[in-house]
Amino acid sequence: MNKSEPAHPFEGDPVFDLHVGGKMAIRSAVELSGADELSLAYTPGVARVCEAIAADPEMTHHYTWVPNTVAVITDGTAVLGLGDIGPAAAMPVMEGKAILFKQFGGVDAIPICLATTDVDEIIETVVRLAPSFGGINLEDISAPRCFEIEARLKELLPIPVFHDDQHGTAVVALAALKNALRLTGRTPGDTRVVISGAGAAGVAVARILLEAGIKDLAVVDRRGVLNSERGDLTPVKKALAVDTADNFGRSGTLADILDGADVFIGVSGGTVPEEWIATMADDAIIFGLANPNPEVHPDVAHRHARVVATGRSDFPNQINNVLAFPGIFRGAFDVRATAITEGMKVAAADALADLVGDALAEDMVIPDPFDPRVGPAVAAAVAEAARRDGVAKA
Amino acid sequence: MNKSEPAHPFEGDPVFDLHVGGKMAIRSAVELSGADELSLAYTPGVARVCEAIAADPEMTHHYTWVPNTVAVITDGTAVLGLGDIGPAAAMPVMEGKAILFKQFGGVDAIPICLATTDVDEIIETVVRLAPSFGGINLEDISAPRCFEIEARLKELLPIPVFHDDQHGTAVVALAALKNALRLTGRTPGDTRVVISGAGAAGVAVARILLEAGIKDLAVVDRRGVLNSERGDLTPVKKALAVDTADNFGRSGTLADILDGADVFIGVSGGTVPEEWIATMADDAIIFGLANPNPEVHPDVAHRHARVVATGRSDFPNQINNVLAFPGIFRGAFDVRATAITEGMKVAAADALADLVGDALAEDMVIPDPFDPRVGPAVAAAVAEAARRDGVAKA
Repeated sequence: MNKSEPAHPFEGDPVFDLHVGGKMAIRSAVELSGADELSLAYTPGVARVCEAIAADPEMTHHYTWVPNTVAVITDGTAVLGLGDIGPAAAMPVMEGKAILFKQFGGVDAIPICLATTDVDEIIETVVRLAPSFGGINLEDISAPRCFEIEARLKELLPIPVFHDDQHGTAVVALAALKNALRLTGRTPGDTRVVISGAGAAGVAVARILLEAGIKDLAVVDRRGVLNSERGDLTPVKKALAVDTADNFGRSGTLADILDGADVFIGVSGGTVPEEWIATMADDAIIFGLANPNPEVHPDVAHRHARVVATGRSDFPNQINNVLAFPGIFRGAFDVRATAITEGMKVAAADALADLVGDALAEDMVIPDPFDPRVGPAVAAAVAEAARRDGVAKA
Repeated sequence: MNKSEPAHPFEGDPVFDLHVGGKMAIRSAVELSGADELSLAYTPGVARVCEAIAADPEMTHHYTWVPNTVAVITDGTAVLGLGDIGPAAAMPVMEGKAILFKQFGGVDAIPICLATTDVDEIIETVVRLAPSFGGINLEDISAPRCFEIEARLKELLPIPVFHDDQHGTAVVALAALKNALRLTGRTPGDTRVVISGAGAAGVAVARILLEAGIKDLAVVDRRGVLNSERGDLTPVKKALAVDTADNFGRSGTLADILDGADVFIGVSGGTVPEEWIATMADDAIIFGLANPNPEVHPDVAHRHARVVATGRSDFPNQINNVLAFPGIFRGAFDVRATAITEGMKVAAADALADLVGDALAEDMVIPDPFDPRVGPAVAAAVAEAARRDGVAKA
């Protein structure tokens, strides 16, 4: 190579330098140093393993990498905050996800970026791929398509299917909220919560909060509170309205509904003016989870709230999905779970919340992503919940 | 675990012991020891890599693992000699293939076993997966479906598509045959060849021999020599008949056509009686490639032939695909080839044949699979041929 020619187009930029050649690789788990090993790992020996699986498909669990392998599947339509950038451009995120699966959960993850955005085609493609994987992690698929894709795949496949943008966020947000409620002396039943954003994350956060006992909950989209008076709701939003704002007759704009609210959770990407936040209850709790720009900047939020969390690593209380998805799949795989139930998600959130323990404080409502206890604790709680929910095969 | 309980059902069997947990794993290529690295490899840093690829898809080549990654795709319909055992039972072979890709070619290979055997569904599924991979290796898909699947995928995709059961076998067989001809003082133009078997391997071996200058070639299936007098031929067999036996008016049974033949190549899995072999020309060449039972046992073959090769590692002259596919994809990837051409396959065979060099002898017409020169030599020859054929992008 010519010395004056850079080895890659963005040489010297730390992000691009780190990405050269990609972030992951395959590694052989067996040593092949000669014909003898080759005859065990490949022909003729391997034929007997194939025959054993053909005779009893359960043998897949013992003699292949399938039960520890998750497909990280996207169509590139909702990548980070970048939107619909297509499958090729989504790959760096999926590779990142894959190495997080490995590092924090010991899970082998394969990034699959699909050249289709059609709901039926995505579903049938994943069904055809399924014999190769122990689980399916859907990623960065736009709402509301993501809801139907996940729901139908869960029906069709006998393995865990998990849309991380929904449930990973929901689990970690619930964990942080549980600790924030504890700290501010609230119980779920007497806490008034507002969620801004009714996309993948907003819907899932709302659902898990209901599961965890939050009753007075309003979800707000660009046109205001989701309730049944509105005629413009998708089926998913309509169902959510019935289970949330309808029960307390909530309506109006985000500004209206924030008045007196205990908790604000932003998963919308917009900006909330300080004067709206200022009307919240005493000891308010504000989670601004949009990345890189939280709905409420922590400096502003702290003027009006006791507990503040964001999605960013440079502020305390980072709501980071990596706290959840590696341990959730680890736990599911450890007991050969056939699905990831609501109970398993809540158990993951409880385990995360409990890890904070005596360190609980305004700036410590959720563990650090690099806390080595996180993955194992989440996995153990999820495995136990899978047994309890009757979806564990081992 | 209870001490008396085996860790897995076939504990103590070396083949199954080696397969516990599967034969491969994912490995992270970057270190993630804290929040700083996480912010480069994942959010927020990764977003800039995604944007760079969205702006210029060529950036995929620099900043993802895609250009070094091949999907090893099967539908489980023709696995080894086992036949249609389905996708789950095919996985051990695909994992084996994947680790051979890594060890002998430095290629990251992902096994994908599909839950469909429909030709159109396989094709559309692979097309949808294609953004995630730098190449497609089709494996153990039954004939004649494999021909249509490969041909249509080659048309549809801008990346190498290679059916190893066809072309891997063909490349290695051609390499061994070139050396055997050299040893017995023959030239391709004056050599009479008989191939028994008109499945994936038989058709591909025939095609590459024609490409390499063999003229008098007859391919035989269960009903005899393929020629245009027969009314029972598939389109693939019909086309092959026109290019082979028709040119020399060959017809009859395998026994008929072996009389006076210089070369016999068996890729059928049947058994050829010694009395038929005995009628071949002096200094005959016999390749019995069925595994584990060659069409002619080497002990029998040696009574009537000067050069004998098999698919087995426990006899000299092993025709093993692993001599070809890792180096072929390595070479193709090194120059970002958009296809694997006939010229690249013949170049691979030439490189393999040349590696034998002065060691050429009756029991050494093809290198050993563990000869460390093999992968690099094949890769270099394939890369050069890709440039020559105008399919190299780098």
